Amino acid sequence: MGYSFKPAMCSVVKTVVQALNAQRLWQRIEDLSCFTEPARPWTRRAFTPLHGQSRVWLQEQMQAAGMEVRQDEAGNLIGSLRGRDPDAPPVVTGSHSDTVVDGGRFDGIVGVLAGIELAHALQDAGVQPLRTFEVIDFLSEEPSDYGISCVGSRALAGVLEADMLASTNDTGETLAQGIARIGGQHHKLDKVRRLPGSVAAFLELHIEQGPVLEARAIPVGVVSHLVGIRRVQITVQGRPDHAGTTPMDLRCDALVAAARLIDACYQQAKALNQPDVYVVATVGRVDVQPNVPNAVPGRVEMVLELRSDQESVLASFPELLLQAQEEKLRELGVSLSTRELSRAPVTHCDPAIMQLIRDSARQCGYDSLTLPSGAGHDAVYMARIAPMGMVFVPCLNGRSHCPEEWLDIDQLMAGTQVLAASMMHLLMQ
Amino acid sequence: MGYSFKPAMCSVVKTVVQALNAQRLWQRIEDLSCFTEPARPWTRRAFTPLHGQSRVWLQEQMQAAGMEVRQDEAGNLIGSLRGRDPDAPPVVTGSHSDTVVDGGRFDGIVGVLAGIELAHALQDAGVQPLRTFEVIDFLSEEPSDYGISCVGSRALAGVLEADMLASTNDTGETLAQGIARIGGQHHKLDKVRRLPGSVAAFLELHIEQGPVLEARAIPVGVVSHLVGIRRVQITVQGRPDHAGTTPMDLRCDALVAAARLIDACYQQAKALNQPDVYVVATVGRVDVQPNVPNAVPGRVEMVLELRSDQESVLASFPELLLQAQEEKLRELGVSLSTRELSRAPVTHCDPAIMQLIRDSARQCGYDSLTLPSGAGHDAVYMARIAPMGMVFVPCLNGRSHCPEEWLDIDQLMAGTQVLAASMMHLLMQ
Repeated sequence: MGYSFKPAMCSVVKTVVQALNAQRLWQRIEDLSCFTEPARPWTRRAFTPLHGQSRVWLQEQMQAAGMEVRQDEAGNLIGSLRGRDPDAPPVVTGSHSDTVVDGGRFDGIVGVLAGIELAHALQDAGVQPLRTFEVIDFLSEEPSDYGISCVGSRALAGVLEADMLASTNDTGETLAQGIARIGGQHHKLDKVRRLPGSVAAFLELHIEQGPVLEARAIPVGVVSHLVGIRRVQITVQGRPDHAGTTPMDLRCDALVAAARLIDACYQQAKALNQPDVYVVATVGRVDVQPNVPNAVPGRVEMVLELRSDQESVLASFPELLLQAQEEKLRELGVSLSTRELSRAPVTHCDPAIMQLIRDSARQCGYDSLTLPSGAGHDAVYMARIAPMGMVFVPCLNGRSHCPEEWLDIDQLMAGTQVLAASMMHLLMQ
Repeated sequence: MGYSFKPAMCSVVKTVVQALNAQRLWQRIEDLSCFTEPARPWTRRAFTPLHGQSRVWLQEQMQAAGMEVRQDEAGNLIGSLRGRDPDAPPVVTGSHSDTVVDGGRFDGIVGVLAGIELAHALQDAGVQPLRTFEVIDFLSEEPSDYGISCVGSRALAGVLEADMLASTNDTGETLAQGIARIGGQHHKLDKVRRLPGSVAAFLELHIEQGPVLEARAIPVGVVSHLVGIRRVQITVQGRPDHAGTTPMDLRCDALVAAARLIDACYQQAKALNQPDVYVVATVGRVDVQPNVPNAVPGRVEMVLELRSDQESVLASFPELLLQAQEEKLRELGVSLSTRELSRAPVTHCDPAIMQLIRDSARQCGYDSLTLPSGAGHDAVYMARIAPMGMVFVPCLNGRSHCPEEWLDIDQLMAGTQVLAASMMHLLMQ
């Protein structure tokens, strides 16, 4: 199978792209985003009754677009449109309908609903592609309350491990129990697994979640690779003392030590960036004990998250940081320990699919820019079993994972057209 | 009324001091400390059912020592032993039975139970003093879940203000409602208030909560003054962004800014200390939003607590800190705001009572050392209405507000004897 652009197919591709209905898609965005916790828009956490309600609605939309719908044993919601050759490996798109807390109205749902819109356009245009077409709403792409992200796409790739299934949320429920609670069957995940070769290609449309496309006024991003992500928990152990009676020179203040690490981490990451080296490092989560105004902090646990397109940076950043700060921390009388929480390597997009997306953008009349993704996506796991590509659209001020996240309907449609055109080329050959 | 040491009274003082029962007092310490949350010793928070249970027990102990017991409208538990002259202003001692989370087995309860032991010794020795003797278990000396400390002693001094009563805990309950829930009557606090002159003297026995007495091997501390305490909430407003897609140079990371302030605060306080200047500054409480690994922190709220024996330091420390850091924080693109949470001036102990404690220590055969208190106590508020003095005893390694807090029985008895002897001098004249 080749992914190169085939001008001979332009007529049917054009028919389907013209059948895309902007108002219908936009209305679905509005409708799905309104499944939110009323007090904290736009919040729709996986494994909640609210998310379950939104999926009942999503199933209806897939059916309205002519798709057969099922939920697999891992809790992925899958709509499929049978192709003329049911034995040919399917072409798959999709993303996720869950959100982080406070959210993002577009993150995730754009990729699911654009896929449904393509199915709806195929139905309206009376076109049955050669290959079967699937749209997947992957379960819990965002870090779930069990601490695991990309639950559904990991399961599809066969890498949702036993220790992940045993992770617990605040109430003590395991991820396995959570999957069972929403109708999955965690002991039958082998039925979910897709083997390499069983999927012809995977494409995902997503907002960029960064400022590059908007700043350059380019409507379509062709993702070259997704950065590797490493998370390390750093524990600073000091001594909790009375804040009124313990002189400054007798303290072992864990928070002062943590503060030096946080600032040093920021400066080290800033210094490493170069035109061809992408590094971001964030201490985003901090837990201070006992966290009261009148006690010297005795213990700080924090998570250092590192993302880079350079494996060498991923391999060495936390170690270099701690080495460089060792002496400054020793004078504070604290001790340090670290624990690796997760590590995902750099994921490369398929070069032929990247070219197909570029060509489709040109066919649709849009400029495109090749750029890396600083965010992780379900596409990372789908790349383990199929040639993978991602289409980015700009978002307002590059903001994401916040209530201000925004995308204009024209920006949405540009990306949806390019996704549809690329998918059509893959579906017809 | 003079507080000078009167050798002529040594006989009755000696009788009562000899009637103090070390085993009985130690057993009461054991019994009261065991009213604790089982999973977090030694935790007995004010306003909890557990604290209420411990006070039923405390009332029984006061009654066993011959005292009449009542709870006042502010929720203070008061035991009293009527004097021969019921019209003479009473002599009062006491402290508190509530704890911070995780603790301290001795903080607070030593001062309440030593007072009860003195009443018990008076009963055993058949001595009725001239003046009425009161032991008060003040309500919630430690910062309560409503954010207010010294609730009961503030009420006695007439300074438990309306805005404090309106403060809420995590469940939205106000302090006024909390006081009502445990049987107080917050709208009748004028009945609780004691006017200056209505109390002859107030003494409080407490563990030092610092390392000085132990390091010098001196059993009795005579407190000269209690440091002033100022608490300022600092809010750092940055911008919450996606931690994967926001380049380092486009971030407004509130936690990096907070980290620089925390380290600078530590260094500024350390530099200000001199042999005759006491300064401690602590950032003990930090609240990060949204506090997840994959988001750039958008907002940090933290409490800077400052304690000093220098009013000039109290007046200028936070302002100088923020001024000095202004430029370093501006380059991070964050904004700062501050809110004064509380401010208590330096409180001086009564010189005549200090001398009385010194003389009583000598009469009991103990060396004493005059020293300041870095901690706040109910005595700060009692000093507004009566001549006030405090007796300190050492504690193991100077540790307090932690499970390791410890005091030997001999150390406890030295302090109790000195408290009793001082109180006797005040009660008999």
